[in-house]
Amino acid sequence: MDIRACLFDVFGTVVDWRTSVSRDLAAFAKQKGINGIDWLEFAVEWRKLYQPSMEEVRSGKRGFTILDVLHRESLDQLIARYRLKGLAEADVDHMNRVWHRLDPWPDAVPGLLRLKKKLVIAPCSNGNIALMVNLAKRAGLPWDCILGAETARAYKPTPEAYVASCRQLGLAAASVMMVAAHNHDLKAAKAQGMKTAFVARPTEHGPGQTTDLKPDPACVDLPAADFVELAAKLGC
Amino acid sequence: MDIRACLFDVFGTVVDWRTSVSRDLAAFAKQKGINGIDWLEFAVEWRKLYQPSMEEVRSGKRGFTILDVLHRESLDQLIARYRLKGLAEADVDHMNRVWHRLDPWPDAVPGLLRLKKKLVIAPCSNGNIALMVNLAKRAGLPWDCILGAETARAYKPTPEAYVASCRQLGLAAASVMMVAAHNHDLKAAKAQGMKTAFVARPTEHGPGQTTDLKPDPACVDLPAADFVELAAKLGC
Repeated sequence: MDIRACLFDVFGTVVDWRTSVSRDLAAFAKQKGINGIDWLEFAVEWRKLYQPSMEEVRSGKRGFTILDVLHRESLDQLIARYRLKGLAEADVDHMNRVWHRLDPWPDAVPGLLRLKKKLVIAPCSNGNIALMVNLAKRAGLPWDCILGAETARAYKPTPEAYVASCRQLGLAAASVMMVAAHNHDLKAAKAQGMKTAFVARPTEHGPGQTTDLKPDPACVDLPAADFVELAAKLGC
Repeated sequence: MDIRACLFDVFGTVVDWRTSVSRDLAAFAKQKGINGIDWLEFAVEWRKLYQPSMEEVRSGKRGFTILDVLHRESLDQLIARYRLKGLAEADVDHMNRVWHRLDPWPDAVPGLLRLKKKLVIAPCSNGNIALMVNLAKRAGLPWDCILGAETARAYKPTPEAYVASCRQLGLAAASVMMVAAHNHDLKAAKAQGMKTAFVARPTEHGPGQTTDLKPDPACVDLPAADFVELAAKLGC
């Protein structure tokens, strides 16, 4: 395999969104004197609205809209559902930007630093550019550039999200490896001719996770235990 | 001034395109046994075709086309004009990618490293994403992301090139500083509400340069001798 670039799914693959969102919002709620909310459940409920919100764009019902806006619409729904009161606009905006403040899995930064020495590394995430930039700056993710839904103007797993990202790097899809903890993402990338690496994140959804525990051999070229092993396997 | 991000013009401002292009092509020509060409003149002639080629896009005569393609069309014209013979497709492609191999001015990397600690830094160049990524990787430019013509789908000084770049960072134009060695670029940025910094590059066009030797006070908020002084003036 002559790999020149690695593109990464981010939510779940590079960062641990579930515990990051719940921990951040719990601390914020404490400051604000908001009690009685299970913030781990809140994070999961928020994430449940993620795919349906993007599906409106993917299906063509709605023009391309960045994830910060979709996240905010979902958050507004949850604020109503959980009957959260007394939040100013700045508070809700701060809560919405929790997705800009996610912590990486421990191997992510060391692995990316090794990969970056030899390869171009970039997110290919459904997160928008500002979200990805702020997240990377806080977490120390050393991306060479930010690619994904906003630059492609298409949400994964729409083929254009992968095709545009390879084209924008000036590379053939076969020279680009998609890295994800989700087999469905890799299946869609492989269908566009990309190479694929699966890194298991068995606690993304908590201790009882049942999905994506193993790579699907039908769509995974390279399984790796974590980003450091991925770097080693790619000769970095 | 509450500046959160600095966007940079690249050709001329961050990198010295004229001597880089001529030196690289002269070395390549020597390898290929091509003699009798003034490569400094060739670089300048190539650059002269830059604005007219983008003007076709800006005027709407042509759909958005990345700079690698415009550069290649201009190079093909010059190869005919200079009667260069015996070049294979791979040779011409290598010559075209000389714009991916430009050297930074000596203060660029140290200044950017300081600015990056406090601010988001990104190019806002007419160069396409692949060009900017390859150039940054070779030169060690520590961008947080790549913005500019390809992400905005508009060539500077079209307003959308500046407006889209600020929007993609999720920032108000007044919180974003455009940095350039060219007053016309800063004039266009300021017209969109951005803050502006002028860094003189008095030998961009060679020893006899007569343009852009000084900041135009009508459009420059912050003059700086180089990127290191710019960092100091911005408190980085």
